[in-house]
Amino acid sequence: MSLKITNAKRIEGLDSNVWIEFTKLAADPSVVNLGQGLPDISPPIYVKEKLSKIAAIDSLNQYTRGFGHPSLVKALACLYEKFYQNQINPNKEILVTVGAYGSLFNSIQGLIDEGDEVIIIMPFYDCYEPMVRMAGATPVFIPLRSKPVNGKKWSSSDWTLDPQELASKFNSKTKAIILNTPHNPIGKVYTKEELQVIADLCIKYDTLCISDEVYEWLVYTGNKHLKIATFPGMWERTITIGSAGKTFSVTGWKLGWSVGPHHLIKHLQTVQQNTIYTCATPLQEALAQAFWIDIKRMDDPECYFNSLPKELEVKRDRMIHLLENLGLKPIVPDGGYFIIADVSLLDADLSGMKDSNEPYDYKFVKWMTKNKKLSAIPVSAFCNTETKLQFEKFVRFCFIKKDSTLDAAEEIIKAWTGQKS
Amino acid sequence: MSLKITNAKRIEGLDSNVWIEFTKLAADPSVVNLGQGLPDISPPIYVKEKLSKIAAIDSLNQYTRGFGHPSLVKALACLYEKFYQNQINPNKEILVTVGAYGSLFNSIQGLIDEGDEVIIIMPFYDCYEPMVRMAGATPVFIPLRSKPVNGKKWSSSDWTLDPQELASKFNSKTKAIILNTPHNPIGKVYTKEELQVIADLCIKYDTLCISDEVYEWLVYTGNKHLKIATFPGMWERTITIGSAGKTFSVTGWKLGWSVGPHHLIKHLQTVQQNTIYTCATPLQEALAQAFWIDIKRMDDPECYFNSLPKELEVKRDRMIHLLENLGLKPIVPDGGYFIIADVSLLDADLSGMKDSNEPYDYKFVKWMTKNKKLSAIPVSAFCNTETKLQFEKFVRFCFIKKDSTLDAAEEIIKAWTGQKS
Repeated sequence: MSLKITNAKRIEGLDSNVWIEFTKLAADPSVVNLGQGLPDISPPIYVKEKLSKIAAIDSLNQYTRGFGHPSLVKALACLYEKFYQNQINPNKEILVTVGAYGSLFNSIQGLIDEGDEVIIIMPFYDCYEPMVRMAGATPVFIPLRSKPVNGKKWSSSDWTLDPQELASKFNSKTKAIILNTPHNPIGKVYTKEELQVIADLCIKYDTLCISDEVYEWLVYTGNKHLKIATFPGMWERTITIGSAGKTFSVTGWKLGWSVGPHHLIKHLQTVQQNTIYTCATPLQEALAQAFWIDIKRMDDPECYFNSLPKELEVKRDRMIHLLENLGLKPIVPDGGYFIIADVSLLDADLSGMKDSNEPYDYKFVKWMTKNKKLSAIPVSAFCNTETKLQFEKFVRFCFIKKDSTLDAAEEIIKAWTGQKS
Repeated sequence: MSLKITNAKRIEGLDSNVWIEFTKLAADPSVVNLGQGLPDISPPIYVKEKLSKIAAIDSLNQYTRGFGHPSLVKALACLYEKFYQNQINPNKEILVTVGAYGSLFNSIQGLIDEGDEVIIIMPFYDCYEPMVRMAGATPVFIPLRSKPVNGKKWSSSDWTLDPQELASKFNSKTKAIILNTPHNPIGKVYTKEELQVIADLCIKYDTLCISDEVYEWLVYTGNKHLKIATFPGMWERTITIGSAGKTFSVTGWKLGWSVGPHHLIKHLQTVQQNTIYTCATPLQEALAQAFWIDIKRMDDPECYFNSLPKELEVKRDRMIHLLENLGLKPIVPDGGYFIIADVSLLDADLSGMKDSNEPYDYKFVKWMTKNKKLSAIPVSAFCNTETKLQFEKFVRFCFIKKDSTLDAAEEIIKAWTGQKS
């Protein structure tokens, strides 16, 4: 191979990816897949019907406005104005992207320079780190830490940032902090007090906040999702990211959005016009029409933003119960659709697993997928190399699954506990 | 505004974009839009029907494989194996992207480093230059030049690269050349001899070739599209880019693909997994099913790859005739769906146009859109700053338009010539 036919330096070492490896593993149809965050429940019928009808309209199969299909940015502005103190300009303060992934990428490429520092809270959605590295910046990590729970139920709210430790991560080089609430994989929903600590530091150090809020509707009884962009002094420095895939259970549509002040959004727009230019028109129009249905009934229990979390809370409680039956102490999530649990309590015999250099959880998930036909995602994939040890006993289970899938998981777990007793 | 809330350096100066400006201008419904390369003919019925049906299938609304939906990469491998000497591995040698735009971006970010040089042939599809600059590389420009035609019809084949001039652009820093055949905006279809000159230089200087072949099916009588990747020694150094939007007249689907050897494609895959991760599932499945229909009837005149260029050739000839009636000498394209013409022959009175610093063609198109209700795209948008003068008298007209649109253009032109005589 000639020397000139090599990769660009910016992607050096960024080629491994947990989804590609574990999605392949779970593709065996005999495996019950609680891995990738992929609903197997039906998306709302009207969402699918809108797309079916729009596909027949010629003009909606052609290019649309690059920064977001006009009817979609209007719907998003109308929706989010209900949560922000101010009006939102649909053309200047919203950018429609290829999933929340695309929003994260546009934000980081548009705003983060070589040599900048970006604070990432561990565990973190796995793309944050390589995206920051691809921009030539340095990720600075801080873990969520749990207080002792002394036999009580373990809750995602037991996991917090230490305010002193967080302050110690900020300095003059800090360009941004990436926040994720509700949090994947822990399910933590940040409180007003916790967000205020972060906001105060962002303002003190003149730092941007990239707030990944893709699970914004999925919060459970007793919790409330808050947007850090609505805190005093934060709108001007915050990009808030949402997702059609998570909002309407259509992850395959790959539509997301960034909301923020025009002085930030305009730079994300510049990245978009030099990377993918525009998003798919029929999906954007279908999404806009679906949003209008639910925007008009937001106080109604049938509004999908209200009905989905109700439906998921039952599934969460069922999955918690199943994992407890297996002898685990799952962390009860306040939001999102994942549960993590320390699986080392199961004392699985992993001695037969080949790659002894892999973290415990990677080996465990491979062992469980092969021997129990149940798949999940190792939590150390959500950590940087140095701190994998802190989370390598944890595995993530996804519970946005239809009852038959959860029944199948229950059968596996019953047989497993039967073998143990 | 604080100093820290600024754009990243990589996007400095890359915020202007011809499509955004001129698409807005042509949005007035009273304007006949021959600007953006956007079909207003109907896409094939089966393409739209496939999407309508797929929208109803739950699993096809969820995430699929990141590097390309399995059924789509299989269809693409089967299709392109007919044109390459070798089998194509659907998982390793194909990457499905967010349009050809996404393929160009992945190629450049994955393979081009800061300080590299990339040869760009002028005029060029306008995103090539900012994409190269965003990678920190230096674009090196070379123009297509026309020989004198002495009263004969002016053809896109009269525009050629000077082999000595081309050779002078290659050096040890040259990482890649971006080729575009059939060419936008001139419509040139590179011949075997012309491609051999480029291939020889790529091999001599160990240079990559990024070959944008989105108009691959759209070649007119007497011409044949050739793939430079099939030339000896070129497969291993070529990324070939295709487009669903151009292939099936569904530009709004924003699906494209890169084909090439795994040692190159794997780096594009790394970029994809750290930028957008995966493309929309329902569109990919619909595209795969549409491809299978036409792959099975490639020798049949009804195959869309054969029927669309036949349909377009009639439109091309009609548009040439119209522009000649206006007193212009349009360049007859051998491929693609654009015609360019020197509009300075019309002696339009542009003295009333505000921004006197703009190139002639920008002012002309704005004048024509406002005064004649006919829109087009200025060709100097396809040039770098230094060489805009070479093409600023040319304007691009798109002819993938239904008859009623061309009728409306004809009415405008008839009235215009009536006023002139």
